Amino acid sequence: MGKAAGKARALKEEAASPWLPQQERTRARDQKREAVLKTAAQLFCVQGFHNTTLADIARQLHITKPAIYHYFSSKDEILVECVRGALAAVEGEFETASRQGDNARERLVHFMTWYAENMTTVFGMCLVRIADQDLEQKTRQELYAAKTQVDRRIRQLLEQGIEDGSIAPCNARLAAFTIAGALSWVGHWYKPGGRLAPNEVAEHVVGLLTSGLSPRPPTPPAVERARR
Amino acid sequence: MGKAAGKARALKEEAASPWLPQQERTRARDQKREAVLKTAAQLFCVQGFHNTTLADIARQLHITKPAIYHYFSSKDEILVECVRGALAAVEGEFETASRQGDNARERLVHFMTWYAENMTTVFGMCLVRIADQDLEQKTRQELYAAKTQVDRRIRQLLEQGIEDGSIAPCNARLAAFTIAGALSWVGHWYKPGGRLAPNEVAEHVVGLLTSGLSPRPPTPPAVERARR
Repeated sequence: MGKAAGKARALKEEAASPWLPQQERTRARDQKREAVLKTAAQLFCVQGFHNTTLADIARQLHITKPAIYHYFSSKDEILVECVRGALAAVEGEFETASRQGDNARERLVHFMTWYAENMTTVFGMCLVRIADQDLEQKTRQELYAAKTQVDRRIRQLLEQGIEDGSIAPCNARLAAFTIAGALSWVGHWYKPGGRLAPNEVAEHVVGLLTSGLSPRPPTPPAVERARR
Repeated sequence: MGKAAGKARALKEEAASPWLPQQERTRARDQKREAVLKTAAQLFCVQGFHNTTLADIARQLHITKPAIYHYFSSKDEILVECVRGALAAVEGEFETASRQGDNARERLVHFMTWYAENMTTVFGMCLVRIADQDLEQKTRQELYAAKTQVDRRIRQLLEQGIEDGSIAPCNARLAAFTIAGALSWVGHWYKPGGRLAPNEVAEHVVGLLTSGLSPRPPTPPAVERARR
């Protein structure tokens, strides 16, 4: 920054109101709300939902418990918001995946890869690490609905793939559970900063689910294939 | 039963000591211990570990809380025994699997199928449904060690299969996590008495992991294969 520009800016800042403009205030509020959610999600994952108090979350953020009540009315509400955020991301990515790839298997691979990577984030982990039994009835239902939606999206892509021939015929319901299980497990065992980066983990897990354990016979050359 | 035989038996029973013979007493004790474990495992799975009290377990068995102390000193000890039982079963089945099949993939398929079925039992569910954060340090370590052992056994078979060519080359550590994840998930979603029997669930899940989602090209006839 030039000297003159720096001076002009300093002057402007000095003259400014001690209150932030409305737009910035909204942004600051959103950022703070997001910070509460993220810190809470981290604590839920590490020390368990029922072992985490609002006071723990406040302490971690250097704020008071009443400051949290400014954003959320209860611990369950915080979790519900984490779950809703995770679900919105799932739905968004399903939309993105739906516009990609030559066939349904490629769309499913896109979606699975994203989901596996997402499982290495605290919000993803939150979706799978929290024991249902710890939650209020309403919260439990939201969590269950989110998990069911993930299963449903995977099953939809499986059914489309069986239809267009890009996926081998299978029981789509059970296959969806199996895939969701393998991917969600990442949220249980992944340790941030571990040997493999999230995208490497995702690539390996999705690769196994796509190709299977059995070796695949080499694909015959295109000419031979055409002759059959 | 004939009338005379029935009379003789009734007489014998009347003359018998009100105390059971030593062997039967040991058996009865073992049965009761097992019943405590099974009931506890059921409650842990349904209502969560930290929501279950020894009084709940006693009530379910129509006994008093002190009667449970006759067998176990604490709730954590009960869980540790459930985990040890599950681990012993895993090790036993790994031994069985090791003596079967023509190659490591077939041994792995045997082991995976058993493990998936085992996940539909309360002891199997216990292994995967209980949140680590609820446990005493020592209990948590036992549970972690048991899960790690399952991963290790799967990884061993994977490595043998990559070695003997029956399994496609892959990152065995990550593949083991993926397989353990998909199989363990059964313990999360399976509802006893559901549409599919445990062996059908196991067959589908293991089939997907073995063959993958992508369709496999038809195997060329043996003659053609030999010519290559």
